Amino acid sequence: MIAVLRIGHRPFRDKRITTHVALVARAFGADKIFIDTRDVKLENTVLSVVDRFGGDFKIETGVNWKKIIKGWKDVSVHLTMYGLLLDDVIPEVRKHKDVLVVVGSEKVPAELFEMVDYNVAVGNQPHSEVAAVALFLDRYFEGKWLKKRFNGKIRIFPSKSGKKVISK
Amino acid sequence: MIAVLRIGHRPFRDKRITTHVALVARAFGADKIFIDTRDVKLENTVLSVVDRFGGDFKIETGVNWKKIIKGWKDVSVHLTMYGLLLDDVIPEVRKHKDVLVVVGSEKVPAELFEMVDYNVAVGNQPHSEVAAVALFLDRYFEGKWLKKRFNGKIRIFPSKSGKKVISK
Repeated sequence: MIAVLRIGHRPFRDKRITTHVALVARAFGADKIFIDTRDVKLENTVLSVVDRFGGDFKIETGVNWKKIIKGWKDVSVHLTMYGLLLDDVIPEVRKHKDVLVVVGSEKVPAELFEMVDYNVAVGNQPHSEVAAVALFLDRYFEGKWLKKRFNGKIRIFPSKSGKKVISK
Repeated sequence: MIAVLRIGHRPFRDKRITTHVALVARAFGADKIFIDTRDVKLENTVLSVVDRFGGDFKIETGVNWKKIIKGWKDVSVHLTMYGLLLDDVIPEVRKHKDVLVVVGSEKVPAELFEMVDYNVAVGNQPHSEVAAVALFLDRYFEGKWLKKRFNGKIRIFPSKSGKKVISK
């Protein structure tokens, strides 16, 4: 089980960024996203994508993030530009089957750095938690997420210059 | 020169997503971002990151996107979940030194598909233009963007569980 935990979510301000984090988690092979603040609209947006495009990705909002980290049985990884370099840490993390990937919003509580097993930087330059989740999962799965089948009602097929879509 | 062209930017609604696209473009090794709608606030946000963290990334807003694509001398690539698979196209694209990477917002004009040299899918599942730009640049540069030096006033060094920051 690969889960993403998003902390510091503010439903109005972060609506679209957190939606992107959730959709990236799903598309890049994670099984679930936890979000600290309750947000039914966000749940519905994500579940609607799952309903149409397939798979069994789960979303749970309004969780106690400290409990999720403390209760996680296997390895936890916080993505932050202050962490150790992704390429150095990923071979170690890849040995684990259950990975909790934690991403904060603009400010994260200092204690988070101590609570996780690894603080990992997808580069030490400011960029985006959306890209950090994508790159982390890409490296963890060694690019194999691209081959994952979702068997959804809607399937999109690669096309040179149009839209090739099949809807059941 | 690697440039990203963001089209369909709506300053209020897309403020944070477009900021993330711009910061990802910079961190993952692009030289410039063009944005179709004029947005001085966004320019200032991005230039402030460049000022503090280094490099010479450029931003230009309020451009005519059709002119940018038509005037581009080398290869142009539109990132869309309807396109050809990234891994199939990237060896071809990598032969080119000047790449224009086009990303739309939620809806893109149909004619865009015909105007570019390649429509490329970073997976055929809905996810995020932020992640798409990150993955495309990662594959284009074969991961070497991580070693790029920005020589900024602020430098962050990899750290196990704290923040190791040097400010000039």
